[in-house]
Amino acid sequence: MRRWNGWGDTAIEQPLKPEALGFLADIVGPGTAPNDAVYEAALAQVAAQPSRLPPHPLIDTSPAARLAASFGQSCADWLRLRFGVLGRVSDGVAFPETRETVRELLGWAQAHGVSVRPCGGATSVVGHLSPVGDKPVLTMNLTRMMRLTALDRDAQLATFEAGVLGPDLEAQLRAHGYTLGHFPQSFEYSTLGGWVVTRSSGQQSSRFGRIEQLFAGGHLETPSGPLDLPTFPASAAGPDLREWVLGSEGRFGVLTDATVRVTRLPEAEQFVGVFFPDWARAQAAVQALAQARIGLSMMRLANPIETLTTLKLAGHAAAIGWLERYLALRGAGADKCLLFAGFTGSKAQLRAMRRQAGVIIRAHGGVSTGQLLGEKWRANRFRGVYLRNSLWVAGYAVDTMETACDWPRVAPMMAAIETAGRDALASFGERTHCYTHLSHVYPQGSSVYSTFVFRVGPDFETSFARWQALKRAVSQAIVAQGGTITHQHGVGQDHAPWLAAEKGAAGLAMLDAVRRQLDPLGVMTPGNLFGDRD
Amino acid sequence: MRRWNGWGDTAIEQPLKPEALGFLADIVGPGTAPNDAVYEAALAQVAAQPSRLPPHPLIDTSPAARLAASFGQSCADWLRLRFGVLGRVSDGVAFPETRETVRELLGWAQAHGVSVRPCGGATSVVGHLSPVGDKPVLTMNLTRMMRLTALDRDAQLATFEAGVLGPDLEAQLRAHGYTLGHFPQSFEYSTLGGWVVTRSSGQQSSRFGRIEQLFAGGHLETPSGPLDLPTFPASAAGPDLREWVLGSEGRFGVLTDATVRVTRLPEAEQFVGVFFPDWARAQAAVQALAQARIGLSMMRLANPIETLTTLKLAGHAAAIGWLERYLALRGAGADKCLLFAGFTGSKAQLRAMRRQAGVIIRAHGGVSTGQLLGEKWRANRFRGVYLRNSLWVAGYAVDTMETACDWPRVAPMMAAIETAGRDALASFGERTHCYTHLSHVYPQGSSVYSTFVFRVGPDFETSFARWQALKRAVSQAIVAQGGTITHQHGVGQDHAPWLAAEKGAAGLAMLDAVRRQLDPLGVMTPGNLFGDRD
Repeated sequence: MRRWNGWGDTAIEQPLKPEALGFLADIVGPGTAPNDAVYEAALAQVAAQPSRLPPHPLIDTSPAARLAASFGQSCADWLRLRFGVLGRVSDGVAFPETRETVRELLGWAQAHGVSVRPCGGATSVVGHLSPVGDKPVLTMNLTRMMRLTALDRDAQLATFEAGVLGPDLEAQLRAHGYTLGHFPQSFEYSTLGGWVVTRSSGQQSSRFGRIEQLFAGGHLETPSGPLDLPTFPASAAGPDLREWVLGSEGRFGVLTDATVRVTRLPEAEQFVGVFFPDWARAQAAVQALAQARIGLSMMRLANPIETLTTLKLAGHAAAIGWLERYLALRGAGADKCLLFAGFTGSKAQLRAMRRQAGVIIRAHGGVSTGQLLGEKWRANRFRGVYLRNSLWVAGYAVDTMETACDWPRVAPMMAAIETAGRDALASFGERTHCYTHLSHVYPQGSSVYSTFVFRVGPDFETSFARWQALKRAVSQAIVAQGGTITHQHGVGQDHAPWLAAEKGAAGLAMLDAVRRQLDPLGVMTPGNLFGDRD
Repeated sequence: MRRWNGWGDTAIEQPLKPEALGFLADIVGPGTAPNDAVYEAALAQVAAQPSRLPPHPLIDTSPAARLAASFGQSCADWLRLRFGVLGRVSDGVAFPETRETVRELLGWAQAHGVSVRPCGGATSVVGHLSPVGDKPVLTMNLTRMMRLTALDRDAQLATFEAGVLGPDLEAQLRAHGYTLGHFPQSFEYSTLGGWVVTRSSGQQSSRFGRIEQLFAGGHLETPSGPLDLPTFPASAAGPDLREWVLGSEGRFGVLTDATVRVTRLPEAEQFVGVFFPDWARAQAAVQALAQARIGLSMMRLANPIETLTTLKLAGHAAAIGWLERYLALRGAGADKCLLFAGFTGSKAQLRAMRRQAGVIIRAHGGVSTGQLLGEKWRANRFRGVYLRNSLWVAGYAVDTMETACDWPRVAPMMAAIETAGRDALASFGERTHCYTHLSHVYPQGSSVYSTFVFRVGPDFETSFARWQALKRAVSQAIVAQGGTITHQHGVGQDHAPWLAAEKGAAGLAMLDAVRRQLDPLGVMTPGNLFGDRD
């Protein structure tokens, strides 16, 4: 069963070893287990906010449905749920099963002054789901729209209803010998439609493409009518409408169907762990690997603090001691940086890629540990996020922030983000443990993905203030260093204040002009992406 | 010197051998050399349309400047120039050298009710430059804005003023060891800005990327103010503004600067000619090559008629006789199809690519002729278009139309286009010679690029009516078969009537909402892309 106030399945635990907790206590101080609110109390809070929706046969206004519909996985969402300080909740949830029902509900919402908030797997970490605005809020949960409706083997195109969850999408494709290859960290609980409208990026997007490259067309129901996006392999016929459905975060309508570019299941795949002696050589190596266009499916490079943290949180002190002694002999000591490199393709392609990559890796002092650590990473690729649950129980909150920037800005960006994160809680007398990896590496630059661990406070207000200070400081640092406010999480409400820094006034006006055209009554997801201008 | 009424440099001729003319005469009938209008008569026609622009120190209203600014390379443009039936011409030309001048001119145009038509190398084949609308027309020629203003070796980003011509762009990059690798057929006369706003595709875009992948950011001057597009390697921060500057064809403003993703000059490059026995095996081969993701830089596959035409127009009958006998022995006879395959990269990558491609090519009955024909193609890659001049002199007009569609539609599309083209002139008692190649091959599908040769009529009206009938018939066939109205030429005015078929009413309304936001007085390039709605 899915956790109502944390990540993932209640049956799955990733407990922390004592030495891991000791490591954190040394850095940010010992944690105190918070006193979590119970589910029944949360339901009672929802019930105390009567639904303001007019009755509709397809809308569930039960407290359980409304509670589940009102929160994602942002740090703010966690604090509200764990402390039992819910704030505003959705007024009801519909689970449409067809695009006609979506259309009918949009018409009904417009007629009754109801705002509509589409929702997939509710894995947003940037506040996409929080109800705001004066109107009653209908959450439209699309996860019952999950079928593979067409598979064109010739064009390698698969059409799905947009609410399909990652594992269900891959299972339906795998049955025919295909894969989409889109594996964000949230894969197990996020949906295809969510990936599209938030411009998601999978762990192996270097090979398979970001969702922008995978999304070939689809169908959007907007408040002013349907929008069909036909599939072409490429087109010069004016501005690309797909590129404005991508990232639209519910502002322009509801994505009901998406056609995606799939590939045959790869013949071979390997993940390899490589240690570099220091950050300078590690960054130079991944930059060279990307610019040499070798075709790796993944490069994920941890900085020294993240490398250390990964090894410490893993537990196995004895085995890691041996590993560290071996690495130190090969030149990778205290400043070592761990790269996970993915190779995906035909066997012949794998051989060619590994040969070419090996030359560059060795030239930068990289020490390969073969597939041992890489296979461990693969086995746990969707498990790491469960640590959030264990950390919370130990008294620690976790947030992640991420950006992308051009190569000359990457190292200063990383420093600025970690400095901002470490200093952010000083006025509270608290410390933050910050560490960073490059999650997606491009010829032009890289994403910069930082994790922040800080102590939960004694109550909601204290904890929320800490989180807000951290979010603000890091977002400002990102923008000041010339990065995008998000490389893969989306904008939601949490990043909306920083969007103008990169879109400019003219850019926001363009987006809002389209919003007014498609949603003249302003019912779609107020607050997400950009503020309303009318 | 550039031809005023044809393609390219006056010093370059690609004369047709008698056997080539005989081949065409057999198919569409013998041509009659038209009686071209002389330059002085064209100037006199321009002078007879006094400029309606208020005086401005930066605007050239001389007949020579206005004539050069009013025509591109569409078949309709040719007919007007060659027959001396110019129709409406531009009222004057400005050659801004800075973005500030562009901004000032846009303000002036809005204040004086003048419409503005940006222009690069004037190579449009779809009527981007033809003055329309009630307002006086100012052509803004950007080709004096041609400097490399920044080169970031670390991020592999180069910033150019947008009016830089292809050869000047490559020369400035080559001086530093870099290339953009964007080589459309029009390369020698087209500009970076033109490539961006028409979504151009280069011959080797399989490796280097279409201009959509190369355009990292830039600066647009819109009538309502500047729009800056920062460079990020990737971003999830909402809809991508770049993707609406791409393909905007002057409707939203004037692109003054563009930052593009460049690469080190490749270590090695080879072009190989391969013959397949028939279309079915040839198409299956290029589809398999694309879907195997081997990384070829080019695949350009001629159908049997184009293969035959290429060999016939080449002249060298004796050498080709030998080649054909050799190919026939290897199984490639009358239905043979010629593929030009490009390999670009490091030497190690070339070896790996050629090995992998060889397996697929042989499995489909392909017979490689090595680099002999491929190097000939490379040497003449920008020369083929000069045949248009020679054909005209022999009494034949040439037009090309192109689309892209998913694989299941490619063969029917090719048949439908050629049938529509061949039948289009029947009511005139004329025939068309049609032939087709796939110019850009993707895992999902392919472009389909057809050439049409037909006889010039005795006068402008007759010839124009033939061209219109052809254009209409083929465009309708493309749309009916589910293709985009253009894969690489853009929309301009010639394709505007067919844009709604793929964008839909909602899509066009989105585009027009942005246009009204950025250009509230409607001064930017009326008629291009879509009709005005206010």
